Amino acid sequence: MALSGGIDLGGTKIQAAVIEADGGVAGQSRRPTPTTGGPADVVEAIAGALREAAAEAGVETSALDGVGVGSPGVVDDDAGTVAGARNLPDWQGTFDVRTALEQACGTRVSLGNDVQVATDAEFALGAGRQYSSLLGVFWGTGVGGGIVLDGRPWTGRDAAGEIGHVVVRQGGALCGCGRRGCMEAYAGRAAMEARARRRYDRGEKTVLFKIMKERGRTRLTSGVWARALEKGDPVARNLLDRAVRALGAGIASSQNLLDVEAIVIGGGLGIRLGQPYVDRIREAMMPHLFNDESPPAIELAALGDLGGAIGASLLISAATPASR
Amino acid sequence: MALSGGIDLGGTKIQAAVIEADGGVAGQSRRPTPTTGGPADVVEAIAGALREAAAEAGVETSALDGVGVGSPGVVDDDAGTVAGARNLPDWQGTFDVRTALEQACGTRVSLGNDVQVATDAEFALGAGRQYSSLLGVFWGTGVGGGIVLDGRPWTGRDAAGEIGHVVVRQGGALCGCGRRGCMEAYAGRAAMEARARRRYDRGEKTVLFKIMKERGRTRLTSGVWARALEKGDPVARNLLDRAVRALGAGIASSQNLLDVEAIVIGGGLGIRLGQPYVDRIREAMMPHLFNDESPPAIELAALGDLGGAIGASLLISAATPASR
Repeated sequence: MALSGGIDLGGTKIQAAVIEADGGVAGQSRRPTPTTGGPADVVEAIAGALREAAAEAGVETSALDGVGVGSPGVVDDDAGTVAGARNLPDWQGTFDVRTALEQACGTRVSLGNDVQVATDAEFALGAGRQYSSLLGVFWGTGVGGGIVLDGRPWTGRDAAGEIGHVVVRQGGALCGCGRRGCMEAYAGRAAMEARARRRYDRGEKTVLFKIMKERGRTRLTSGVWARALEKGDPVARNLLDRAVRALGAGIASSQNLLDVEAIVIGGGLGIRLGQPYVDRIREAMMPHLFNDESPPAIELAALGDLGGAIGASLLISAATPASR
Repeated sequence: MALSGGIDLGGTKIQAAVIEADGGVAGQSRRPTPTTGGPADVVEAIAGALREAAAEAGVETSALDGVGVGSPGVVDDDAGTVAGARNLPDWQGTFDVRTALEQACGTRVSLGNDVQVATDAEFALGAGRQYSSLLGVFWGTGVGGGIVLDGRPWTGRDAAGEIGHVVVRQGGALCGCGRRGCMEAYAGRAAMEARARRRYDRGEKTVLFKIMKERGRTRLTSGVWARALEKGDPVARNLLDRAVRALGAGIASSQNLLDVEAIVIGGGLGIRLGQPYVDRIREAMMPHLFNDESPPAIELAALGDLGGAIGASLLISAATPASR
């Protein structure tokens, strides 16, 4: 049976999967993204994770039809390179991922944008299967977006889908990108953590950092936010309310422009907080939705944490279930 | 030579044109949109304007290949109807424009969305000719948007392109649509006039309403705004500065999502204020543009006031010059 590999290369973790022709998962492996070293070390970690996933599927990596990689930064599949991936170690320049990874794995390599391949996966195999147009919103450290129109990815001049940098408040909060008022400046986990830290340092009571330490984390992960919410933490609740309002406004703006059939909410926070927060985002969107008599469907991503890796494997196999 | 008719049906005026196969204008006529009566009166006015334009081109309307109508409201070309056109008299319901207009003119009628046909005209024959993707921004009483991606109009589920209702300030100014913080609530001429009126009533000095009366107008037309600016009117300047900031943020948001090759600025205010304001909008967009190393081209609409009527005629002829 034809198998292909998929890699979701994130700033925190590398998720590898080996995928069957019908989209089924034959093997998977996850490891932390190296925080030191450089591109060569990252490629070595990718190859290691892929070898483990292939072993679980009972094959060598060289037996795979190929490996797709969903990557942050500026991805050039023609050249086989990734440039300016600021969340990866020492990756300001341009690095030939394809040559390095093909040598390490003995099979061909295709590259794609991390958010777009995750959107493509939800479209082909996940929550977007019944729609012909959708907007994927990946709510995590930042907020990424992917677009499918008339059944095809829309990537513009290779920089489309930056929904995290849709402006929700002119002159508003400072974003990690250096601009003001971006949706991500309110809803991105990194921005929320920075704001929680400032409030904690000013003496506000919150269990966020206590939970973080108990779990041996150095960041406020999605699980930390979820646990703090469960404990009724007022700072966590307040910052998530604020994030939801920004997501509602930014997603409504995008929908007013695109008028797609469905919005799919994924990403670390989206997956972890799940359906209740998808429902809250829907409510927050409605007051800003122009065509509010015919709102889009809003769905929770169905492929969970594996969506990125599955989507990357589609760069090789274009796997589609018989039902689509 | 094949001739087709085009009608730009606006809340203020009806612009008719008769267009040659290469996009050349063979005849044109303009008249005010009836402010009383109902749909039948509007159709009669459309037919009258078309007869004048046809006469200028030396033909009867029945000799035209057909007539395209760019209309506000909910346009259903399959059914031949326009519904809920709130800027037209007594037009809350659904009216069969096609049957009425075909009877009046003796030729076939096609219907399209007013903003989308104007965008299509700029794409086929105007400022967007050299691009394969563009966002048309029509800055007038409201702010409308039209989208062309990969050479084809993107209309979503028939409600795409509502750039005027992209949120630029959560919880911000009240928009004519009843929502808060829409770009149109800052940049639309109707919203600007309402705000100017409030400031005037509070005693602020402005020549806006004096110019309006001198010109025998009942509204602050684009020409009134332009004249007040020339006279250095501080209220006009301040409200246009505010409009430009909102346009910059809303257009940047849209570009961050779509990453098109070009933005084309048209509409009554866009055309009247011209290139200096296109340049100002570009400047206002830059601070919010994520991919600011590769900004889109920003162009002034090239077809001027006739763009809507020319675009409507494309519903019949799909006129394209040899050069495209």
